[in-house]
Amino acid sequence: MTTMLNWLTKRADLSPDHDAVVLPDDTTYSFKELYDHSTTMAHFLQQKGIKYGDHVAVMSPNQYRFIVTIHALNMIGAVSFLLNSRLSRSEIAFQLDDGDVSAVILDEQYRDQVDHQNVIAIDACDLEESVAFQPISIDLETTAHVLYTSGTTGQPKGVQLTYGNHWWNANGSALNLGLYPHDRWLLSLPMFHVGGLSIVYRSVIYGIPIHLHDTFDVHAIHRDIMERGVTIMSAVSVMLDQLLERLGGERYPEHFRCMLLGGGPAPEPLLNQAKTKEVPVYQTYGMTETASQFSTLDDDNALDKLGSAGKPLFPNQLLIVHEGESLPANQVGEIMVKGPSVTSGYYKREAETAEKLEYGWLKTGDLGYLDDDGFLFVVDRRKDLIISGGENVYPAEIESVLKGHPDVIDVGVVGQTDSRWGQVPVAFIVSGKPVEDLDLDAYSHAHLAKYKVPKAWYDIDELPRNAAKKLLRHQLQARLGE
Amino acid sequence: MTTMLNWLTKRADLSPDHDAVVLPDDTTYSFKELYDHSTTMAHFLQQKGIKYGDHVAVMSPNQYRFIVTIHALNMIGAVSFLLNSRLSRSEIAFQLDDGDVSAVILDEQYRDQVDHQNVIAIDACDLEESVAFQPISIDLETTAHVLYTSGTTGQPKGVQLTYGNHWWNANGSALNLGLYPHDRWLLSLPMFHVGGLSIVYRSVIYGIPIHLHDTFDVHAIHRDIMERGVTIMSAVSVMLDQLLERLGGERYPEHFRCMLLGGGPAPEPLLNQAKTKEVPVYQTYGMTETASQFSTLDDDNALDKLGSAGKPLFPNQLLIVHEGESLPANQVGEIMVKGPSVTSGYYKREAETAEKLEYGWLKTGDLGYLDDDGFLFVVDRRKDLIISGGENVYPAEIESVLKGHPDVIDVGVVGQTDSRWGQVPVAFIVSGKPVEDLDLDAYSHAHLAKYKVPKAWYDIDELPRNAAKKLLRHQLQARLGE
Repeated sequence: MTTMLNWLTKRADLSPDHDAVVLPDDTTYSFKELYDHSTTMAHFLQQKGIKYGDHVAVMSPNQYRFIVTIHALNMIGAVSFLLNSRLSRSEIAFQLDDGDVSAVILDEQYRDQVDHQNVIAIDACDLEESVAFQPISIDLETTAHVLYTSGTTGQPKGVQLTYGNHWWNANGSALNLGLYPHDRWLLSLPMFHVGGLSIVYRSVIYGIPIHLHDTFDVHAIHRDIMERGVTIMSAVSVMLDQLLERLGGERYPEHFRCMLLGGGPAPEPLLNQAKTKEVPVYQTYGMTETASQFSTLDDDNALDKLGSAGKPLFPNQLLIVHEGESLPANQVGEIMVKGPSVTSGYYKREAETAEKLEYGWLKTGDLGYLDDDGFLFVVDRRKDLIISGGENVYPAEIESVLKGHPDVIDVGVVGQTDSRWGQVPVAFIVSGKPVEDLDLDAYSHAHLAKYKVPKAWYDIDELPRNAAKKLLRHQLQARLGE
Repeated sequence: MTTMLNWLTKRADLSPDHDAVVLPDDTTYSFKELYDHSTTMAHFLQQKGIKYGDHVAVMSPNQYRFIVTIHALNMIGAVSFLLNSRLSRSEIAFQLDDGDVSAVILDEQYRDQVDHQNVIAIDACDLEESVAFQPISIDLETTAHVLYTSGTTGQPKGVQLTYGNHWWNANGSALNLGLYPHDRWLLSLPMFHVGGLSIVYRSVIYGIPIHLHDTFDVHAIHRDIMERGVTIMSAVSVMLDQLLERLGGERYPEHFRCMLLGGGPAPEPLLNQAKTKEVPVYQTYGMTETASQFSTLDDDNALDKLGSAGKPLFPNQLLIVHEGESLPANQVGEIMVKGPSVTSGYYKREAETAEKLEYGWLKTGDLGYLDDDGFLFVVDRRKDLIISGGENVYPAEIESVLKGHPDVIDVGVVGQTDSRWGQVPVAFIVSGKPVEDLDLDAYSHAHLAKYKVPKAWYDIDELPRNAAKKLLRHQLQARLGE
C-alpha cells in the first residue's frame, strides 16, 4: 500500500500562483484558488452527508465546478461515478442502481434526467466562502472513479480506476512527451470520459493549466492554440479535421508541440493533411480500462510511423494474440495490454472481469499488429470486423480510404448480411452531393482489394457518434435492419 | 504489490538508439547496447551461481561496467550492496558480514581490500558475446540496493532502498525540473553513493544519457558542459567552487539548465558567486534514506530563495519538529520527512529503524527551518551542533561566513570543550597564507555574533572529506584531541 499526500494539496503548496484552469472567457484560477474552492466544496458535501467510501455520481458539462467537485470528492475519499450527460433517463437510472450510488451532484440542466432521492446541485455551494478541510491521504490502490464504458453494445460496465492508474498514466505520458514548465493542455473532450478526466490529473501532477472548453467550438479552440500559449491538445479525428479546415493556410505557433490524437484509428488522408500543415500529431491508443493513453507515438517517429499508435508508455506492455498465442510482427490479432495504469476490473462484474483480465493482461477486444520495429498499428475493434467470404475486412481501413475522396466529408462502414459471402461491407456517406454522383465504386476499386469495396452506398446527413466523437457503428447497423 | 517490466528492457524497446552512457573519451553506448551488455552480464553472473534474492556486493570506480552490473543484478533479482571503495579492509569486512553478502563483484584494483570466498572480477565477462537473458519483473516493494550510510560516527547501517523508492525519486525530480528530450545528465559523484546511483535510474526511466566521469576532473567536466550538450549536473559545494574558478569570466551555454547542488548546506558566498556567473544552481536536500533528492528549489524561486533547498518533491512531505511538536515558520528544529522515496528501514536493525521511522516519518537528524512561504533552509547536522553558553551555534553558518574572506580557500568548524561555555567553536583554515596573517577575528566580528566567533584558528593543508566530498567533522574533532 502506497499512501501519500492529496495531490492537489501538494500542488497548491508547490505552485500556488500558477494557472490551474483557464476558461475561454479568460477567467483564470490558480492552484491555490482551485485548492481553496475544492476544500470549500468538500466541506459543503460533507455537510450534505457525503463521507469516505460513498459512491457519488457527478453529472456536469465541462465547467470549472466539475473539476472542483472531482477534487472535493477525492479529498473526502468518496468514489466518483462520472455520468455521461447524453444518456437517457433509463440509462442513467441503470448506472445509479448498478453503481450503488448514494448521492448525485448535478448541474441544474440535467435535473430531469435523474431520478434519485439524494440530489445535490453543483451550484449550491458558495465557493468563495473558503472553508478549511483536511483532505485524506491518497492510497494508490483505492478506486477513485468508476466510469461506465460507453457500451456500444450490451450492458454498460463500470470500469474501476484507482489513483495509481491515474498516476502511472500521467507519468507514462510525461516520460513520452516530456514536460515543459510552460506547458498548457487544452481539454475539450468531456471530462466524464477518461480522455478528459486524465487531463484533470495530469494538470495537478505536472503543475500545468487546463484550457477548459465546454463544447468543441472550433474558433475558440483555434484562438487558444494560436494566441494563448496552449502547447498540447487531446483530440479525436473529427476535431482535428475541423481544426485543420479552420487553420487553412496558416501554421500553429512553434510552442504548440503536441496534438494527441485518440479515439480509434485515424484516417490516413487526415494524417497526411496534418503532416502537410506541420501539425505535430501524436497518435495514441487507449481506453477507459487503461486510464486513457496506453500507447503513443513519440517525437522521433511521429513522421516515419504515420498511422501508428507508437509503443506502450513506460512501463506498459502489449502483445498481439490469437487463440492464446502471441503473434509475430505484421500479423493481425487481438491487442492485449498490461501495466500499472490498467483497471483492476469492472464493478460487481466478477465473471466479466475474470474473462477479460488474466494475470494482469487485459483483452482489449481491439485488433492490431506490430510492425518490424514493434510499433502498434490499430486495425479496428474486433466486434466491428466484417468477415466476407472468409476474408477479414476492417471497416476503419475502408473509411480511411474513402475519406481521401474529395467529395466525402465523413463515412461509416458496417457489415451487411449477405447470402453468398456471409457479410459484405456497405458504406454510409456524408457529402454535399448525392452518392450516385460520386463514382465511389471506381474510386474504391482503384484503392482497395475487390472484397473490400462496399456493396452498397447510403446517403446520410450526419454519422451517429458518442460524446467522445466515436462512431457508433451499431446505430448504422440498426439502420440497415430498418 | 505493483510489478512491471524491467525498466532497462522497457527503455531499450522505447529508445534503442538513444545515447545511454557517454564517457569522457567520447565512447558512447546506446540503450540497446546497454541492454545487451546487461543481459550478457546477467547470464554470466547466473553461471557464476548468483540467483534471485542473493546479496551481492559491487566495488567499482565510476565506469561503464558498474552501470552494466547494477542492471544485470536487477535483471536476476539479486540485491546489490554498493561498496565505498575508499573504505578500509576491516570496514569492508564489516559490511560484507553484516549484509550477509554471498558474492563480491569487484574491479581488480580493489582485490586486496576484500576478503571473501566468492569474488568475481567485473572484467571477467565478455560483454560482446551478447547472450540473451530474460530479466525478472520489477516489484516496487522489493529492495534493489542496500547502501551503508557513510557513518561519520557509530557503526554503519545498511539503508534498504526499493525500486519504488528510486521510481518516486526519479519522477519527483522530473516533476520539479521538467523533462526535455535532449537532456544529458553529468554524473561525477560516486555511484556507490545514492547521489550517483539515482542518476543511473533517472537515465533509464527518462531515456536520457549519463555523461559518466570517474573522478572529478574539473577540465573534463567543464568541457562536457561547454561543448557536449550536458544540461544537468549533480554536484556538491567543493565541485561547484572549482567549476566556477575554471569558468572564470565565461558563461555556460544556455542549454545547461541545472546545477543540482546537494551534500549539505552551501556557503552563501559560493551561491552568490554562482548567481553572478549566471549558473543555474538548484539547491537540494536529501540523503541515502530518501533515495537522494527529497526537497529541491525550483526554477521560479532559484534566485529569490538563495540558500534554500526548496520544497519537498511531489508528493513528499516535510515537518520541522522539536520534542514531538511541529514548529511554526522560522524556528529551527529537526527535519522530519515522509514520502514514497523514503527507505523502509535499515537492514537487520529493527530497533534503530523503529527509533528513526514512525508512521512513515523519518527523523533525519538534520536541523532546519521553513520560511514564511514554506521553503526549507537546512541549518546543520544535529550532531554537529555546538552549544555554547546555552546558545545554538551552527558550524555551517560560520563556515559560510568565513568562505567570504578573500584568502580563505576552505574552512571547517567544530566545537571544542570549554570549561566556561561548555563548548566553543574553533576553525580549521585552508589558505595560501598562515592564519595569523588573515585577521580572521576582526573579519568574524564584523559578520557574526560574538558567541559564534571561533575561539581558535588552526592551519590545515586540506580538509578531510568523504567520497561524496562531505566534510568529516569528526576527523577535525579528533585532531583537537591530539
